[in-house]
Amino acid sequence: MSKEQMLYEGKAKKVYVTNDPNLYIVEYKDDATAFNGEKKGTITGKGQLNNAISKIFMEMLNERGIPTHFVEQLNDREQLVKKVEIILLEVVVRNIAAGSLAKRLGMAEGTVLPKTVVEFYYKNDDLGDPLINDSHIDVLELATPETVKLLEQYGRQINDILVEYLKSRNVTLVDFKLEFGITPQGDVILADEISPDTCRFWDADTKEKLDKDRFRRDMGNVEEAYQEMLRRLGGVEA
Amino acid sequence: MSKEQMLYEGKAKKVYVTNDPNLYIVEYKDDATAFNGEKKGTITGKGQLNNAISKIFMEMLNERGIPTHFVEQLNDREQLVKKVEIILLEVVVRNIAAGSLAKRLGMAEGTVLPKTVVEFYYKNDDLGDPLINDSHIDVLELATPETVKLLEQYGRQINDILVEYLKSRNVTLVDFKLEFGITPQGDVILADEISPDTCRFWDADTKEKLDKDRFRRDMGNVEEAYQEMLRRLGGVEA
Repeated sequence: MSKEQMLYEGKAKKVYVTNDPNLYIVEYKDDATAFNGEKKGTITGKGQLNNAISKIFMEMLNERGIPTHFVEQLNDREQLVKKVEIILLEVVVRNIAAGSLAKRLGMAEGTVLPKTVVEFYYKNDDLGDPLINDSHIDVLELATPETVKLLEQYGRQINDILVEYLKSRNVTLVDFKLEFGITPQGDVILADEISPDTCRFWDADTKEKLDKDRFRRDMGNVEEAYQEMLRRLGGVEA
Repeated sequence: MSKEQMLYEGKAKKVYVTNDPNLYIVEYKDDATAFNGEKKGTITGKGQLNNAISKIFMEMLNERGIPTHFVEQLNDREQLVKKVEIILLEVVVRNIAAGSLAKRLGMAEGTVLPKTVVEFYYKNDDLGDPLINDSHIDVLELATPETVKLLEQYGRQINDILVEYLKSRNVTLVDFKLEFGITPQGDVILADEISPDTCRFWDADTKEKLDKDRFRRDMGNVEEAYQEMLRRLGGVEA
């Protein structure tokens, strides 16, 4: 497998073409952004930590029947993934009110939601990734109604798996963001990453935040929180 | 029918109890607000004009099988309506991109939408009437999933009727907001008003705005626009 030209550089990752037309290499960066890029910073070691954490989640989901883009970890910062075209939707699944949901619905952060909430956001930095509904998705042709249904179904399934998995590690899964892609063969599979950058993780007892909210809210001990998450998942830095 | 104590005063209307437990009286005011109450003003004669305009739309919809709260016009500012408990959802139906949709999806105002867009907003002034999705409605228990489906269906039906009706009057229906209520008997019926306060009306040829956007955007000739709408609908001020 040889790494060839860079295809795309995002806020937290770079994606490279390989000599295999069906595979990409993803490189995890230490760069951190929040509030649609308004806040920028670096979290030392984040690249390695998220590479290791996302590997654990993706392999676990693969084993439990969720199709993902993850193929294998290559080194401390890189992993091999299946080539996909990213669907321009962020699928957000929520168990507890926090962040924009708490604000939107006027709920205190920490309120346990009586039912799981699934939201779709339009992946568009210029527009600030706005919340959209099925009818907007249809008009923008971001996905067919069937795909939207499938994304919501995957979102709920993944939530069930992650909640259970994290509970045994004394972590409460507050909410998380997923991205999906379409393979050249037309299959919809989970892409992007699952990490403290994309999830809210709280210690189940103390409710201590073990995720990017520590960066967003200048709480300190950001790297330590990511390390603690990796430790709880039983992982080691490559 | 005797008008008794005031039950509620909104931004543009007052609602009174009557001696009939199934009926309310609605009084239309000249007060105008925009941007969630940030902009306040008065449009001379708006109360009479919207009373007359909404009567025409509601009677027409009643005749075409859409259940509405409208019973009869009482005088220049008042109408008799069925008592309902208002569902805390604004149902917005859009044919052309304008206002918040143009901004949210990054579309130029005036873009004809390839499909009708239906949106739900949480009627909550403190929160700024945020856009919400089915899963938020469910968590907030604002309406059952069956009622949400019914509201969307009514919204689309009403849109079809209004688009056709207005086309023959050389008016393009850009978008509009509906509110629904539940009668003591448990029926979901159209409530609130249909007027230049709640719809975007454009002259079909010149695209001249004949609605509250003239007030929102300080375009002048606000009262004249409302009068012109009433004239096109064949109505007269009571």
